[in-house]
Amino acid sequence: MDHPFTKIKGGVGAPLGFLTSAVSCGIKNPDATRLDLALIYSEKPCSSAGTFTTNRVKAAPVRVSQTHLRKGNLRAIIANSGNANACTGVQGIRDANAMCDAVAKPLKLNRSEIGVASTGVIGLPLPMMRLEPKYDDLIEQLGPKNGSNVAAAIITSDTHAKEVAISFDLGEHRVRLGGCVKGAGMISPSMATMLCFITTDANIPAENLRKTVLECVEGSFNRITIDGDMSTNDTVIVLANGASKMPAIRRNSTNCKLFRQALQWLMLELAKAVVRDGERVTKFVTVKVEGAKTYLDAKKVAEAVCKSALVKSSWNGGDPNWGRIIHAVGYSRARIREELVDIHIGGKAACIGGLQADTPMELLREAVSHPEFEIVINLNQGTADYTMYSSDLSPEYIDFNRSEYAYWKQARKDGLV
Amino acid sequence: MDHPFTKIKGGVGAPLGFLTSAVSCGIKNPDATRLDLALIYSEKPCSSAGTFTTNRVKAAPVRVSQTHLRKGNLRAIIANSGNANACTGVQGIRDANAMCDAVAKPLKLNRSEIGVASTGVIGLPLPMMRLEPKYDDLIEQLGPKNGSNVAAAIITSDTHAKEVAISFDLGEHRVRLGGCVKGAGMISPSMATMLCFITTDANIPAENLRKTVLECVEGSFNRITIDGDMSTNDTVIVLANGASKMPAIRRNSTNCKLFRQALQWLMLELAKAVVRDGERVTKFVTVKVEGAKTYLDAKKVAEAVCKSALVKSSWNGGDPNWGRIIHAVGYSRARIREELVDIHIGGKAACIGGLQADTPMELLREAVSHPEFEIVINLNQGTADYTMYSSDLSPEYIDFNRSEYAYWKQARKDGLV
Repeated sequence: MDHPFTKIKGGVGAPLGFLTSAVSCGIKNPDATRLDLALIYSEKPCSSAGTFTTNRVKAAPVRVSQTHLRKGNLRAIIANSGNANACTGVQGIRDANAMCDAVAKPLKLNRSEIGVASTGVIGLPLPMMRLEPKYDDLIEQLGPKNGSNVAAAIITSDTHAKEVAISFDLGEHRVRLGGCVKGAGMISPSMATMLCFITTDANIPAENLRKTVLECVEGSFNRITIDGDMSTNDTVIVLANGASKMPAIRRNSTNCKLFRQALQWLMLELAKAVVRDGERVTKFVTVKVEGAKTYLDAKKVAEAVCKSALVKSSWNGGDPNWGRIIHAVGYSRARIREELVDIHIGGKAACIGGLQADTPMELLREAVSHPEFEIVINLNQGTADYTMYSSDLSPEYIDFNRSEYAYWKQARKDGLV
Repeated sequence: MDHPFTKIKGGVGAPLGFLTSAVSCGIKNPDATRLDLALIYSEKPCSSAGTFTTNRVKAAPVRVSQTHLRKGNLRAIIANSGNANACTGVQGIRDANAMCDAVAKPLKLNRSEIGVASTGVIGLPLPMMRLEPKYDDLIEQLGPKNGSNVAAAIITSDTHAKEVAISFDLGEHRVRLGGCVKGAGMISPSMATMLCFITTDANIPAENLRKTVLECVEGSFNRITIDGDMSTNDTVIVLANGASKMPAIRRNSTNCKLFRQALQWLMLELAKAVVRDGERVTKFVTVKVEGAKTYLDAKKVAEAVCKSALVKSSWNGGDPNWGRIIHAVGYSRARIREELVDIHIGGKAACIGGLQADTPMELLREAVSHPEFEIVINLNQGTADYTMYSSDLSPEYIDFNRSEYAYWKQARKDGLV
């Protein structure tokens, strides 16, 4: 076991005091029966925190949730798949607010206590007439055993739902953390949207939660890349309701450190699951940059390597092509010296001091033939390091992303465009 | 006619006083008979200037040519395809120097008057034993009618040789400009695995030539991208021998302006030819960003759009997907306001004020069905603009770049690794 936590069932429904539900509206395709609208609700008031896309083009639900999150007291989240409600202007904001209102009233909450998230095609209005008839079901079906339905309702072209829940001790109290995620980096043929919702019955004040979430996102979701495209909808929201009855977690306390470790581990598990389930991905590659002068240099190198179309193509082909890796290292704008760079692929030396190592090519090919392998790039100039998780780029990815015309045809049928 | 120049034949051999030749060494494949080693030589002393990759990993011939170019008096260029002589350490420098020496002696030049360039696979030593037997032929075959052979000898995965030559008047004197270029993969702003050689019989002092070349490269080769990968070998070298017997072109004179226009036009023609002949490219797309606050904002937007895997996939599919374009505009880090962004595709409004325009989808699909089309992104925030030339990304590109194992197998046969 590589972690000190107990895995439990139930995803976002696992922590005490959280009720969830999901229904099928047919948002993307009126004839489909898959779940596409989900609700997470805490019976008690919550602390909340979140992070959102840094794209300057932000979907309406991102703008609305950012505003609602300011007080740090979200108590419910409503989320849909099938349409991103992005680039939809004033109407988009109206629709996102309407989603909040639809659940605020029966739950006796203020609109500002609701977070809202959407994922799907960009630029087409939400077909609200397909959501509205389902709000009553969504509320009625709220229950403590439905966490997995939320995970299922938010996916788009992901091949499977992704959720994790754990329990662990903070002092004398047992607490639970549950999360679900929907794929990033063009998981759907429409967008690069990642949605992640996390619930916990730990007791952590909003300001401390906010700082902790930022730290954990930096070490997890900010370290993955599939195709280098940043979406308009990326959203991570964490709700903490204190239902475990533990005392509040103070900043910098032992409990705070333990909680951060658990949250970081959970987020990293979810982030890695996103890469493994990336669109038409066949390889999961961990890129460790070591020996950089600064953290930023290490990060630049890791990002350049993980985003290079040529490097990713070679991973797809099972080709241990260190020449393409070092050429990406060179254009990363990090301070590097070619003659100091060592590259190990799957533990085997591929390049030492900027030159081809004497490892037989067959051994290197064997190393990259596995579905998961690690590349270590040592710049030999300092002590800073940075790790990223990435994937290959496949001909099937391009083929999959060639056209979204079908979405538009449905929107026209709906009279939305 | 969109330019005031007379197109002439002969490529880099067209200007007066330049002799060229090319031979077949079998550098990549000893059984092949294609041309892979070329020589350009001026009968008279030259002014010279050049620009090179900004990748920190630089191929040996780039390092050697940069040093030789310092005096601005190159008189010959030797170039090979099939092996990039990159990441080859001290041996690589020795081999690049040996290539210079091989032609310097019979041409009675100093080694420092020779430029050297290589293109091909990274990380494998040059098979010098296949170049050495061919140097005599290379010198013997020097002649005024061989320009096209040089263009043919430097290509790799290009589908055809690319050269242009023009003549025009500077005052009372007729002058000629000829150029050839090699492109295909690793093509991105700030230069790529791109080699470009240009000759002219205009008379322009080295310092003026240096400034003019920098200006013209910024407006041409730095504006193209195919896959966003920047190579270790990018090289542009211009030789000017004054054989037209015109007086020297002074900086800021009318003749200087006319010469710069001609050089810029020639470079842009060659740069566009590189994009059109990119690896497995099916679309040539001009992306014009207008109305930016600053030149840098416009450039950031153009680069983000032209490098997005999702945008390029949609171009491949003939999908007029403005949602993906605006999402790339949003993450470009330029100062933009979503609600002000207009996007026109092939002259048709696709997005006005950040929202879907009412142009029928059929018209937009028709616009992107052509092999060449233009996208205009107006940020409506200022007066700065920037234009880039880009291509789609095809499943065939990935497939083509999956493995370079064949190179390595040949290198092992040669006893080089």
